[in-house]
Amino acid sequence: MSFDSSSVLVVGTVAFDSIKTPFGARERIVGGAGNYIGWSASRLGVGAGLVSVIGEDFPDAELKAMESAGMMLNGVEMKEGEKSFFWSGSYHMDMNGRDTLETELNVLADFNPVIPEAWRNARWVMLGNIDPALQASVLDQMDQRPALVVLDTMNFWMDIAMEGLKKVISRVDVLTINDEEARQLSGERSLVKAARSILAMGPRYLIIKKGEHGALLFHMEAEQLDFFFCPALPLEDVVDPTGAGDTFAGGFISHLAAMDRTDFAAMKEAVVVGSALASFTCESFGTEGIRAVDRQALSARIEQFRKMTVWQEAAIPSAVAG
Amino acid sequence: MSFDSSSVLVVGTVAFDSIKTPFGARERIVGGAGNYIGWSASRLGVGAGLVSVIGEDFPDAELKAMESAGMMLNGVEMKEGEKSFFWSGSYHMDMNGRDTLETELNVLADFNPVIPEAWRNARWVMLGNIDPALQASVLDQMDQRPALVVLDTMNFWMDIAMEGLKKVISRVDVLTINDEEARQLSGERSLVKAARSILAMGPRYLIIKKGEHGALLFHMEAEQLDFFFCPALPLEDVVDPTGAGDTFAGGFISHLAAMDRTDFAAMKEAVVVGSALASFTCESFGTEGIRAVDRQALSARIEQFRKMTVWQEAAIPSAVAG
Repeated sequence: MSFDSSSVLVVGTVAFDSIKTPFGARERIVGGAGNYIGWSASRLGVGAGLVSVIGEDFPDAELKAMESAGMMLNGVEMKEGEKSFFWSGSYHMDMNGRDTLETELNVLADFNPVIPEAWRNARWVMLGNIDPALQASVLDQMDQRPALVVLDTMNFWMDIAMEGLKKVISRVDVLTINDEEARQLSGERSLVKAARSILAMGPRYLIIKKGEHGALLFHMEAEQLDFFFCPALPLEDVVDPTGAGDTFAGGFISHLAAMDRTDFAAMKEAVVVGSALASFTCESFGTEGIRAVDRQALSARIEQFRKMTVWQEAAIPSAVAG
Repeated sequence: MSFDSSSVLVVGTVAFDSIKTPFGARERIVGGAGNYIGWSASRLGVGAGLVSVIGEDFPDAELKAMESAGMMLNGVEMKEGEKSFFWSGSYHMDMNGRDTLETELNVLADFNPVIPEAWRNARWVMLGNIDPALQASVLDQMDQRPALVVLDTMNFWMDIAMEGLKKVISRVDVLTINDEEARQLSGERSLVKAARSILAMGPRYLIIKKGEHGALLFHMEAEQLDFFFCPALPLEDVVDPTGAGDTFAGGFISHLAAMDRTDFAAMKEAVVVGSALASFTCESFGTEGIRAVDRQALSARIEQFRKMTVWQEAAIPSAVAG
């Protein structure tokens, strides 16, 4: 596979996670935002050029699997004698909260993303959740303005690097955060007001991820705030939500890349495709769910989203019209 | 107005509320489930026959306003020398939680709903949140099986009267509760499993109200669990969510009554209409928002729901198909 005009440049972690949920536990399975994003892109047949860093403990077989799935790993630096980034966490009974038990930065401590020469004209750029300064440095390395830059971040960076974060946010097209983060970033309680305020910071689109409560896409068009809501698919069991947000983001940008569109209508579809892919991630531990998805399974799941959201079978109901 | 085949028999409180939210406070304004349900029905031009109880402190002007809006009050007993039901509560900063500060049952303490003779063949019955024993006694008084019975309840009754509650639930068509209540009633964490379990208790439909996160409609069809999701409209400001669930329920059953339908497709529309009406209730204190709604405002709001939920402008995206 070679990096082409529909490939997505992905910057994000490739790491180990130890995860405990009410459904069980897994020790040191592979994870990391870059990994989930790459797997998600691969399910849409979109090439992902990964820029990341790993230690020599990261399994070769895993790298091979990623490559066969369509990921390009020229941008993944392997540091001899060092260990990969490690995170461990435990989810609460209701799966909506989690506690971080351990974080070992390891190779991530002095990560300095270098974009391979051939990827610097990437049209699609997905900046996974890392230090805003590194996200900015990636944009600095680009030869031209990409067609679309999507940035994911979290409250941690708002706490310690708000200024730098706002600076890089002003340079991207789409920002993905959760509802609490939207409130923190904007200082507004109302999500509508938060969205207005954040869209005034630069991005053309804002996606507020609400986990089991779905995702909201906001867009300012002719001074008018437009929005779209996509529910999360109610699942029999949410086994492990780790990586669901990254899977979503990967599916979102990859769908746009595959269609070569960045308009609002395409964004809506991309939110549904991202949500559908994320639902698979939640059904199993780690990357197990997403890597098993084929086109048939994905199409069937998107059909479930269609069934779940369509209500305009009749026209506007007669009891209300007029 | 006279009670006819499209009128809704409504059983629920008509009361005073004192409410504190981050947007302000109101003392002893009119409220109560029956009141919100009745106002909601009136916005769709549907007659609501109210069965309730009030004290002599309840303002005449208010009763007149309700009657002019289309509510029939023959079933509202006025107890001389007694006081109306009173509730006071304070909402948390995020509006998702509230504390009850005071509850004075007053006339509600020995409420014994008596259905007026002429309403006993009602085809549409909305049982607002009251003691399950009273909800059952209403059904006992009906001359025939109504076309649709919707029952609203809450965790309070699950705590103190689970057996009676389950008995009356087995006799209704639609149950409306929130997500935590669905979990409590079923003993299941997963909403999908909770829905299966609750639908096995008798109701053909289950609506899980998630407040600012929307509403889920579940239906079992040929052993297959079908569902529909309607988001809540993101609002500039949620001023006072009191009565939103009752407004929703009133709009839901009244839309079905107006269309004379009880099929799944109609239920989906009814969930949207109920959600649209509830959004008005949230925008002002008490019944102020819902009573000001006219058909034009409602149609415009339903159009907002359409815009917010439609994503199938193209066919299933090419990047995913096949």
